[in-house]
Amino acid sequence: MRVQERQSQVVLGLDPDPSALWPGSDVRAQGDAPPVQLAGMAILAHCRALIDATAEACVAIKPQLARFELLGAVGWTVLGAVAAHARELGLLVIADGKRGDIDVTARAYAQALFGGVETPFGEVAGLDANMATVNPLMGRDAVEPFVTAARAAGAGVLLLVRTSNPGAADVEDLELADGGSLWERLAGIVDELGGAGVGESGLSDVGAVFGATVPNHLARARELMGQATFLLPGVGAQGGRVEDLAPAFAPGRAGGLVSASRSISNAHFLTGEDPAQAARTEAERLREATWALG
Amino acid sequence: MRVQERQSQVVLGLDPDPSALWPGSDVRAQGDAPPVQLAGMAILAHCRALIDATAEACVAIKPQLARFELLGAVGWTVLGAVAAHARELGLLVIADGKRGDIDVTARAYAQALFGGVETPFGEVAGLDANMATVNPLMGRDAVEPFVTAARAAGAGVLLLVRTSNPGAADVEDLELADGGSLWERLAGIVDELGGAGVGESGLSDVGAVFGATVPNHLARARELMGQATFLLPGVGAQGGRVEDLAPAFAPGRAGGLVSASRSISNAHFLTGEDPAQAARTEAERLREATWALG
Repeated sequence: MRVQERQSQVVLGLDPDPSALWPGSDVRAQGDAPPVQLAGMAILAHCRALIDATAEACVAIKPQLARFELLGAVGWTVLGAVAAHARELGLLVIADGKRGDIDVTARAYAQALFGGVETPFGEVAGLDANMATVNPLMGRDAVEPFVTAARAAGAGVLLLVRTSNPGAADVEDLELADGGSLWERLAGIVDELGGAGVGESGLSDVGAVFGATVPNHLARARELMGQATFLLPGVGAQGGRVEDLAPAFAPGRAGGLVSASRSISNAHFLTGEDPAQAARTEAERLREATWALG
Repeated sequence: MRVQERQSQVVLGLDPDPSALWPGSDVRAQGDAPPVQLAGMAILAHCRALIDATAEACVAIKPQLARFELLGAVGWTVLGAVAAHARELGLLVIADGKRGDIDVTARAYAQALFGGVETPFGEVAGLDANMATVNPLMGRDAVEPFVTAARAAGAGVLLLVRTSNPGAADVEDLELADGGSLWERLAGIVDELGGAGVGESGLSDVGAVFGATVPNHLARARELMGQATFLLPGVGAQGGRVEDLAPAFAPGRAGGLVSASRSISNAHFLTGEDPAQAARTEAERLREATWALG
């Protein structure tokens, strides 16, 4: 839905490296605050600038939780501020934390990322993400609490099915004794758990992370997960090409979200332009290339 | 080493539910702070009391990161304070976050949990955990950055190999086409990556999370991972029995760490005693039962 409104399937990955922020993000002149505070302010400035530069071409941001966690409590405050800024500009928020655990622990993760929790001390707000990535290694009972919490909050989950890294071959690509690969089995879990959460768009609230680096598997993935939104990382820096991703969009344009981080934020290293201008151009290029597919 | 010093293999799981804290943890009388602050103070008081009551019988604490993350920035501050308190009492800290990601993202998670990071703004401290749980679904290249960072910090990682939940059968127990189960394959990664990190104790800095609920697999797990420390969750509430865990201790007492959360913190519901007294008694019972195994 948001994809139609914004005419974009591009997800801006936010992966801020404190050692490689955009010029202008540095706030050391602001005083004698501890390093973690200075780093937090700089990361917030960087992410805001990156979002402002590219928002028009994007449908969502995807913060890497690790980069914020690195700053502990400060990082979580910055993450909340970044998410709020993106929402103000009409962007969805995809929390990329790849959490996975069981039972009450999974529920706590989900409450933190989605709608928060009612406590005896009053309501504690969550991050209010629209989607979150979830690791299904521990099995169905490790995924269900995330699906339940997301559904209650009007949000969705994206299960890791076949990731974009070379090491995915070590585990996700293993062939199973009773046929198919492990990732195909994980795709089955996506399809099964998503069945009860199919909206008017025809897409369910349980999607899949599927590496753009293995486009040869995409048609099979779509066959196994007909109603799932695919989050497609690995375009650009990791070698994935947009034009190979057509099968992802079989259920409609919102069936695939193309995620890019460094190819947008570091575009100025290639073009020599101002970082914001270069990022805007690259995000728009990616938007057009993806939109043309479906 | 710490196991010998403290004569304990018991890990106190910290899984604080804001709705079920020990009496006396409630700090609402302290004023009009926002709910998240009150919940944070209460969780800190609860965890400190639980640690104080059981420290003598334990070798480590194992905070569930999810429960702290639920309180966002406040939760991370509380987590740091809980870890510091445990360290003051001579306990190790096992960060149970089950993180898993690749490349720079994995490194950021590891820096957050272990030794922190040098930034242009100065040094940002990490949680300084002694061990952290890691999810290996994404393969070897998703685990290596954690191992590297842990090794540099004199810490260790614990890979999820066969978890204690029923759903583990959905994925971890799958039989592979070329023989063995997925968890056996994951055990191979543990053994391989740990080879370069075997200390004087004969144990490596890459261990495994192995459910005490499947003791029938323990001998095989030990065969595949001869030098790995096993973190054994699932005793008590989940049905695992200490007396079935003997194979874990084949390389010595420190080869197995028995983790218990609710069976300790909720012991008073069974005995009717004061929570601290009941927790102490249960932790000491578990310490003795485990120590007696060898």
